[in-house]
Amino acid sequence: MDLYDAIYARRDIREFRPEPVPDAVLRRVLDAAHHAGSVGFMQPWNFLILRSEAIRRRILEVFETANAEAVDRYQGDRQLLYRSMKLQGILDAPLNLVVTCHRERKGPHVLGRNSVRDADVYSTCCAVQNLWLAARAEGVGVGWVSILDPSTVAKILGLPDEVLVVAYLCVGYPVEFADRPLLERVGWETRLPLEDVIFEEEWGRRPSAPQEGYTGEPT
Amino acid sequence: MDLYDAIYARRDIREFRPEPVPDAVLRRVLDAAHHAGSVGFMQPWNFLILRSEAIRRRILEVFETANAEAVDRYQGDRQLLYRSMKLQGILDAPLNLVVTCHRERKGPHVLGRNSVRDADVYSTCCAVQNLWLAARAEGVGVGWVSILDPSTVAKILGLPDEVLVVAYLCVGYPVEFADRPLLERVGWETRLPLEDVIFEEEWGRRPSAPQEGYTGEPT
Repeated sequence: MDLYDAIYARRDIREFRPEPVPDAVLRRVLDAAHHAGSVGFMQPWNFLILRSEAIRRRILEVFETANAEAVDRYQGDRQLLYRSMKLQGILDAPLNLVVTCHRERKGPHVLGRNSVRDADVYSTCCAVQNLWLAARAEGVGVGWVSILDPSTVAKILGLPDEVLVVAYLCVGYPVEFADRPLLERVGWETRLPLEDVIFEEEWGRRPSAPQEGYTGEPT
Repeated sequence: MDLYDAIYARRDIREFRPEPVPDAVLRRVLDAAHHAGSVGFMQPWNFLILRSEAIRRRILEVFETANAEAVDRYQGDRQLLYRSMKLQGILDAPLNLVVTCHRERKGPHVLGRNSVRDADVYSTCCAVQNLWLAARAEGVGVGWVSILDPSTVAKILGLPDEVLVVAYLCVGYPVEFADRPLLERVGWETRLPLEDVIFEEEWGRRPSAPQEGYTGEPT
């Protein structure tokens, strides 16, 4: 699949078909993740594949606790809209994937991580994006569940103290790849114009050049 | 360019040719970044294009301060090796790009960011990876300079308090895209086998299935 096609067609997926993801496909996707750049080439990530329903039920409870708190932050129609959205596919997906960052992998000194202690976490996120795009190219959907307390998840999974849960992902063949993100389709948020997020030379100064390179949304 | 080709051929670039990056190319790359997923569709990123040599010289000083401290963490041959590596292309590249995360973009409550306050930063890193891959597909090199104090950079650039510098990138046509990362080529670190970073069901448990999907390094 063409890179730009994968980038524009990638979606956060919450509705999955039950078919398993073949092992060969999963390995290609994980190998793509593993080839992200990392600060000091430390490769701080691990990929923990969860298929056990018992474990996933416990994770679902962690989601439900966090989600119940989140619902209370909204009122009226906004709360109704929030409640109407499916925000996870923990049990529907054939597998879940936990992407972690081992913060001591190469000892205390890692080339390039002196000034920015979180550079290892940043690298792990880059690996997640590779994974997400590779999955899209394979026709596999990925949904990132951020509505859960990572330290509770870490406890359930028995992670060592120095290992941070960065991404909790639901992975499987999706019911569909919609043309637009769910939150855009339901009117929760709108996509910002690209022009609004680009500055030149100083914060707030808009580029003077025309926007001829803007490719826009896929139609 | 094929997605997997971009993923395997992406490199962290520190040696640049002086030709400018055409505006249309830069816009395609930034639009790719802007189409990363983001928690609550908040799109917390900004892209600040720096061409001014005066500003970049000040950033280079910030790098040099941090790098002088970093050198002292190593001894003997390791320190010599560290010193021998070019770790930034701040002035060589035709432009620098600062990718920031606006931590208050959508107000205090962002869907999906209640449990993980840094989910906005994670989203910004995903945008950086899109940018890096799109640049690769365009034949453009990107080098992430993490050896600098982000709060000093923010001060030089006059960023508002709620805006975090996530990635300081040097961008331009590279002298070469090497087949392997610099730190691997010079023997600073080795690539971990994919098998070593995959667990199943619990931390430390190796997958039982054969590794038939492992695609390995490009030759």
